[in-house]
Amino acid sequence: MSQPLWSPQGFLFSSATAGIKASGKPDVALALIPDGASAAAVFTRNQVVAAPVTVGRDNLKSSRGQVRAVIVNAGNANCATGKEGLKAARRVCEELAKNLGAKASQVFPSSTGIIGVPLRAEKITAAVPRLVASAHVGSEALDGFAAAIMTTDTRKKIASQTINYKGRMAALVGVAKGAGMIHPNMATMLVYIFSDVVASPRELQRCLREAVDESFNNISIDGDTSTNDTVLLLASGKSGVALKSVSKEFYRALKNVCRSLAEQIVGDGEGVKHVVRLRIEQARSREEARKIGRAIANSPLVKTAWAGADPNWGRMLAAIGYSGVKVNPERISIYLGDQQVCRKGASHPFDKDAAHRYMSQPAYEIRFVLGAGKVGLNFLSCDLTAEYVHINADYST
Amino acid sequence: MSQPLWSPQGFLFSSATAGIKASGKPDVALALIPDGASAAAVFTRNQVVAAPVTVGRDNLKSSRGQVRAVIVNAGNANCATGKEGLKAARRVCEELAKNLGAKASQVFPSSTGIIGVPLRAEKITAAVPRLVASAHVGSEALDGFAAAIMTTDTRKKIASQTINYKGRMAALVGVAKGAGMIHPNMATMLVYIFSDVVASPRELQRCLREAVDESFNNISIDGDTSTNDTVLLLASGKSGVALKSVSKEFYRALKNVCRSLAEQIVGDGEGVKHVVRLRIEQARSREEARKIGRAIANSPLVKTAWAGADPNWGRMLAAIGYSGVKVNPERISIYLGDQQVCRKGASHPFDKDAAHRYMSQPAYEIRFVLGAGKVGLNFLSCDLTAEYVHINADYST
Repeated sequence: MSQPLWSPQGFLFSSATAGIKASGKPDVALALIPDGASAAAVFTRNQVVAAPVTVGRDNLKSSRGQVRAVIVNAGNANCATGKEGLKAARRVCEELAKNLGAKASQVFPSSTGIIGVPLRAEKITAAVPRLVASAHVGSEALDGFAAAIMTTDTRKKIASQTINYKGRMAALVGVAKGAGMIHPNMATMLVYIFSDVVASPRELQRCLREAVDESFNNISIDGDTSTNDTVLLLASGKSGVALKSVSKEFYRALKNVCRSLAEQIVGDGEGVKHVVRLRIEQARSREEARKIGRAIANSPLVKTAWAGADPNWGRMLAAIGYSGVKVNPERISIYLGDQQVCRKGASHPFDKDAAHRYMSQPAYEIRFVLGAGKVGLNFLSCDLTAEYVHINADYST
Repeated sequence: MSQPLWSPQGFLFSSATAGIKASGKPDVALALIPDGASAAAVFTRNQVVAAPVTVGRDNLKSSRGQVRAVIVNAGNANCATGKEGLKAARRVCEELAKNLGAKASQVFPSSTGIIGVPLRAEKITAAVPRLVASAHVGSEALDGFAAAIMTTDTRKKIASQTINYKGRMAALVGVAKGAGMIHPNMATMLVYIFSDVVASPRELQRCLREAVDESFNNISIDGDTSTNDTVLLLASGKSGVALKSVSKEFYRALKNVCRSLAEQIVGDGEGVKHVVRLRIEQARSREEARKIGRAIANSPLVKTAWAGADPNWGRMLAAIGYSGVKVNPERISIYLGDQQVCRKGASHPFDKDAAHRYMSQPAYEIRFVLGAGKVGLNFLSCDLTAEYVHINADYST
């Protein structure tokens, strides 16, 4: 992982070990914005929602999108924890706000980890003074933040971009945690994007929704949609560069950060050996292309074939057939790299050994030409390995 | 597998090795109905449909639901094989019809196995004379039929029922193949049910659709919907018992046969170690209950937890949350056998060791009480094991 060269101004980071992860690794992360930041957020669409998602949403409303601090714990999702869970999330916000001389509504909380186990707020509140005292600027502190929010992730996930405008520079840096449970509607995925552009919460929200739609909503690891997913975008204004002056560049930079984080998340999916980019072409609409991508990406039969580098294109064709999108199978072509393997919905002679070699790469592309319309979309997915099963067969016990 | 005690009259069975399965095991099965039978069928809803499904549907139309023979091959699905595939399926029907002095439209063909590989019809037609010559009545011949249609199945799947009416007896016997890819909309599942009641194709169709809805549509192994699924119901009339005289009893017997076969299919799912019956209670409608059952049953995170006998009820609650059915999480209770593990959407204290022991059984029930309505439904599913991945990672290569 290359370090971000530029950090946005106005943000301080820290991390600590609060004793929530059984491993004893750092499990609480803090981002401080002493002068406050405008905020926008996109949340999970699951109806079962973790307490911090409810509290975070409420806080953004009360503060009108103004954030002074973000506090994240890993190891416990504080989900399906009832009223006590809501109390715990609020207590963390209040305690941190008191320490900062801010309002509780200016604190944005997140949690990730196991569902249904009560979160002991006092573990986090006990760590607050240390977290606040040790917060500082720079990539090392950010690295600590990125490490503390990890659960089954094996790597930190960071991406950054800069924008130049009339001799001034604005920066964006994004930090994410992902691994299992990643799906189009976003699942146990926490993403924090810090920027120093000058922007209103409303301007940020519009950009964020589109960027999420172009990145995190086009990935899938195991098809599960989580209860805690959050993408938060903060803008401190410290660069003096107004978003509206660089709106195109900002959107492009934001999209790039989101796409890079999305790729890192899939690449670090549980047990993943192959990252597979599905290139859907000639669809009637983005939504249809996405549905098809999702059906292929979520088929256990397809995903296990990928695990074995098996050019079993028939399973992919079958997944398109039940995707819910009206298709004419006799128009569909499938390509494994340069090789066509399916033509007009039927077998096309191809070199099986070469196909197997192609699919043995850690990352590759499969192209689906539908012959239905003019829309293209990339959908990022991965294989389903025996290791995935081992990781997930005994997570809580 | 206990043998069916009673076989319906009017049916002869045989099987042969045509060299389609690489294993060299029997791979073609024949059912003969010398005096013909009324027929009803339910097919896959996948838009990518195998050639024999197209031909079988056409034949039933042309013959107005009259069938003289059923011929099934395993090892090659004859799917995504284009016009040549359709020709191959038709050639098999014509050759068999010629041999029997019947019309090609009175032959019902099926195929199961790998997708996208041309089916060499001559392998099957070469076996036709042997198949016809060796066809005979009784459970041994039926056993041979059941074995020849297997792919990754490890066991034959047979179920039977009888109906008594005024001193006469009518019988039903069902044969199935399943294993991987089994899903509510029915997937690489072939089911043949033979009965000697007197019935019109129309009477049969009505019964069959309902029975399938109460059995095969409520099971899931890996969520994939196949291109070849077929449930065929034949009635020879040889018992002299009219369906309309015993309509209730016939429907119950048919449902029992279907349910038994469905259970056998799930129990023999690829790599399955645990069969899990999801009891959905207090749903608003059957369709909503089924959607919830399907979401739980198709979640890789839930299925891997089952593989580890891990009482991770939070994952199941999360799956309900993204099922697409409007729910109030705060009303949901979950029970592992006698133990309540989730109450009002939150953790309920339970004995983890006892729960782990309960989930270590080869078959058990999990109960979900939604608090939304009055409808209950059983949905049958199974775990996702590392063995499933191994089986499916190199099926075609």
